[in-house]
Amino acid sequence: MDRLTLGVAARLSRYLQVLTQAKKMGKDTISSQELSEYTHVNPTQIRRDLSGFGKFGKRGVGYNIDSLVAQIRKILRTSDQHNIALVGAGNLGLAIASSDIFADHGFRIVAILDVSPKKVGTKVGSLVVRHISELNKLVEDNDIVVGVLAVPPEASQELADQLVEAGVRIIFNYSGSLLTVAPDVTVHASSPAVDLLYALYFYLT
Amino acid sequence: MDRLTLGVAARLSRYLQVLTQAKKMGKDTISSQELSEYTHVNPTQIRRDLSGFGKFGKRGVGYNIDSLVAQIRKILRTSDQHNIALVGAGNLGLAIASSDIFADHGFRIVAILDVSPKKVGTKVGSLVVRHISELNKLVEDNDIVVGVLAVPPEASQELADQLVEAGVRIIFNYSGSLLTVAPDVTVHASSPAVDLLYALYFYLT
Repeated sequence: MDRLTLGVAARLSRYLQVLTQAKKMGKDTISSQELSEYTHVNPTQIRRDLSGFGKFGKRGVGYNIDSLVAQIRKILRTSDQHNIALVGAGNLGLAIASSDIFADHGFRIVAILDVSPKKVGTKVGSLVVRHISELNKLVEDNDIVVGVLAVPPEASQELADQLVEAGVRIIFNYSGSLLTVAPDVTVHASSPAVDLLYALYFYLT
Repeated sequence: MDRLTLGVAARLSRYLQVLTQAKKMGKDTISSQELSEYTHVNPTQIRRDLSGFGKFGKRGVGYNIDSLVAQIRKILRTSDQHNIALVGAGNLGLAIASSDIFADHGFRIVAILDVSPKKVGTKVGSLVVRHISELNKLVEDNDIVVGVLAVPPEASQELADQLVEAGVRIIFNYSGSLLTVAPDVTVHASSPAVDLLYALYFYLT
């Protein structure tokens, strides 16, 4: 299959999130109109995106959620489980660790690390917070491909370097700062304020 | 000016976030190539997006960050300050309250609310956590237009209803659940896992 464009991959990911939540709420089918309301993508675009991958929808009934989820997972190649190292056991780290959102999509937090003696050794769910000096061993032992940085901006570059050194190739950066990494490493910055900026644009105009 | 498309508004918001961070790191100019590395938007698209709003860039020098920030803020109409009510003083709420990311873009958290007797009355930065029963008065007194929901999924719909009842017209939903609101209310769901899904797609393919 051809490589998806960034836009298509981003929209499919958004559909997947909504479908997962709708399923949790007890729904079995969903219409393109409903998908549109939750994702802010217009219904015509949604039907076009989904029609490319075969027939999932029936007029008047909507899409079967289970089969659509399975298809999108296959297209995005996220059917497998992926292991995450979470760096930072502060408020944000704890919020991420206790959220279902990663687990819903096949990501599993298998290690939580920090530098603070107050944090190291404490329990977060079923995991014990480990010292950052154990990073290399944890990444190797647990086949970790994704690192989540939930740390203050001033600590983020050094910790990103350590993640890359340990073998992590995708960094999910919540610190707000801009990171410099090798070309074969992907950094994704999560910026809630950015979403809010454009929501506001659409509200004010 | 014509209304921007969703895609353009989203990209401009991402540029704005990167420009703000670059400025904090002491940079005065930035090239379309650098903007591309941080936003994952291709340089041709970036030049096209920015060329539509006048001449900011000089070949070989890059864009002047200050003037580009001012222009994008004007285009997105976010030059003014906007007041936020944050609902939920758990780990996620505290992480949001302590982050610079909203303040960087002209959003100010002016009220933090919770239902728990353990939280109400405690201090978060310079704010005191207030009981949710004070919501209507706080929204009115502080001219609040945006509500941020940092609460568990099972509490989110009821609290969204209360925000709307109080007069809030943009809800930023971190709870992961799907909300049903009146047509004149905008809900934006923040889903870190969704970003991660498509980052992983590009990494694996």
